[in-house]
Amino acid sequence: MKFNCSHTDPKGKARAGEIITDHGKIQTPIFMPVGTAATVKGVHQRELKTEINPDIILGNTYHLYLRPGVDILEQAGGLHQFMNWDRPILTDSGGYQVYSLSANRKIKEEGVKFKSHIDGSYHFFTPENAIDIQRKIGADIIMAFDECTPYPCDYNYAKASMHMTHRWLDRCIAQDKKSPYLYGYKQTLFPIVQGSTYKDLRKQSAEFIASRDALGNAIGGLSVGEPAEEMYAMTDVVCAILPEDKPRYLMGVGTPINILENIALGVDMFDCVMPTRNARNGMLFTAHGTINIKNKKWENDFSVIDPEGTTFVDREYSKAYLRHLFTVNELLGKQIATIHNLGFYLALVRQAREKIIAGEFTSWKNKMVKQMDKRL
Amino acid sequence: MKFNCSHTDPKGKARAGEIITDHGKIQTPIFMPVGTAATVKGVHQRELKTEINPDIILGNTYHLYLRPGVDILEQAGGLHQFMNWDRPILTDSGGYQVYSLSANRKIKEEGVKFKSHIDGSYHFFTPENAIDIQRKIGADIIMAFDECTPYPCDYNYAKASMHMTHRWLDRCIAQDKKSPYLYGYKQTLFPIVQGSTYKDLRKQSAEFIASRDALGNAIGGLSVGEPAEEMYAMTDVVCAILPEDKPRYLMGVGTPINILENIALGVDMFDCVMPTRNARNGMLFTAHGTINIKNKKWENDFSVIDPEGTTFVDREYSKAYLRHLFTVNELLGKQIATIHNLGFYLALVRQAREKIIAGEFTSWKNKMVKQMDKRL
Repeated sequence: MKFNCSHTDPKGKARAGEIITDHGKIQTPIFMPVGTAATVKGVHQRELKTEINPDIILGNTYHLYLRPGVDILEQAGGLHQFMNWDRPILTDSGGYQVYSLSANRKIKEEGVKFKSHIDGSYHFFTPENAIDIQRKIGADIIMAFDECTPYPCDYNYAKASMHMTHRWLDRCIAQDKKSPYLYGYKQTLFPIVQGSTYKDLRKQSAEFIASRDALGNAIGGLSVGEPAEEMYAMTDVVCAILPEDKPRYLMGVGTPINILENIALGVDMFDCVMPTRNARNGMLFTAHGTINIKNKKWENDFSVIDPEGTTFVDREYSKAYLRHLFTVNELLGKQIATIHNLGFYLALVRQAREKIIAGEFTSWKNKMVKQMDKRL
Repeated sequence: MKFNCSHTDPKGKARAGEIITDHGKIQTPIFMPVGTAATVKGVHQRELKTEINPDIILGNTYHLYLRPGVDILEQAGGLHQFMNWDRPILTDSGGYQVYSLSANRKIKEEGVKFKSHIDGSYHFFTPENAIDIQRKIGADIIMAFDECTPYPCDYNYAKASMHMTHRWLDRCIAQDKKSPYLYGYKQTLFPIVQGSTYKDLRKQSAEFIASRDALGNAIGGLSVGEPAEEMYAMTDVVCAILPEDKPRYLMGVGTPINILENIALGVDMFDCVMPTRNARNGMLFTAHGTINIKNKKWENDFSVIDPEGTTFVDREYSKAYLRHLFTVNELLGKQIATIHNLGFYLALVRQAREKIIAGEFTSWKNKMVKQMDKRL
């Protein structure tokens, strides 16, 4: 994997670049649609490609490990083959879902024992098998096994957890070094900065992570309930330390405004369930604010969903029709809203990239942030 | 509306023809995908057009009347505009759902009082307002208001009900004659033959219906639980009486085998929820039998869904992948299975048409019926 940071905003820290993987190029800044269980919910792979057009998508190790399981994925020749997606994929390490979904979990130095949220069976994730599992899934970018602390988090817990995440990272790196690739292409391991909302811990963690000289670095443990200002403060501290010539991935973030603000701080990669999950609840993001399509006010609004939208759903369906589909709980409603939201997110990061390259990012970002902060 | 029956099977009663409506041509025999609430569940309109390619779809008056309601549909300029579908549409009269879905209903000579299955509100359908409602919905083909008797049905009830359906038909015809079209194109009223599974009643009903000289005729009250042989016997009796120069529509039928057998008896049009509803439960129809994709046997079958299939899903996804999507209850599973099944149904009726035109229908039909009667 290579990263070429080609442009930096003259008035700030926003960057435009390109990541090169064995499955193709990723132009940054990028938003990665979440394909939890080998599917971006409600979207056909070819629609994803032609209408939304992300250079990379994300899969969740915890979910894929439980179902279909790594044996099936290995027999299929990896996740790309299994789901018929030939562009890059990133998988998380499973840690986040172990903490957020599993009812029962025990965190020890060795790893985390947890109970499946599906059938109650017990499983054990360690830094070593998190790498082994991700080898079998076969994503282009794989993540170190970490502990994602909740918000708020006691300082001492955050500190101890951060040190354990660092020790786990070294075990991940060792396992990654000694494990051959299974499908003929390379996988790149990203370490993760932790440290909760404490600047000194974030600084310490970023320095530790930077010292491991990985090909890309991630910032974890944010967008877990803290105020946006704290998130931005942490990103700012960390981005100042993480190497400039490596991509920076802010995990699990966020709203369109969060994304633009973090691009402004030097982040290159994002993922979040928000555009897809909120879509399924009838919430649409637009350049002029958010729409709750279930509201009665859209009942007889026969205008297209988003005249500025880039996907076919924006032009082919009306707000009144989409509102009806949500009222009667039809699958097509979720499908339409998902394509709209992901189309909007991807168009937004593509536009951010253009503005960075044109040297106009900061003023555009300030205008967009103001403009998007409304409920229509 | 015009019907041109261009070919008849030299060895039987199967016909190929073309219905011309103000929204375009319908090549027969045709299967009409069911778009209950202004959407074929899980399928984008443009996918329906390009991948499944039906010349006509069906909407349900009962559902559309309750939600979004005729006011919204009228404001939209009719159902075609509302759902962005520019090909022909047929609506049923609402009678069937009043009997099958509404918990509380009272049938009188005047009409049927029923309780909405959505909010418990009371409504009254009559032959007259069934026409008025269908005017506002705006389908190209509209159906007479009838009583669909259950199976089994007492002879005297079936006889009395049939006579009421005939009286209701004359009221529908009168209302249809005096009601102007609302959207600048014509709507054609189809009467419906009833008579349960009694040959003498079916004969009597078909003669009554034929005497009204409508532009197309329907056969109702079948596929309600009776053995297939009884269904075929009734279709046979009725088709011998209904005029040859008018299309014949067998309502609510059926399996691929039912469809081929009824084409053989002279039926031109079909609709059924089976391909879509069964798809959402993981049941796939193929030319070689049915597949329950949830079965463990497909877990590591990485072959494409249907090598003989005509849609993109048949080529782009594997059985193992589709099985996984059903296991984890992902929307995309229902979407894929629906497109496959509808694609299969439409390809089947297109092939039937080609075989009729080529004079090879009967032997092909016998082969296909045998071949499809398996569980894979």
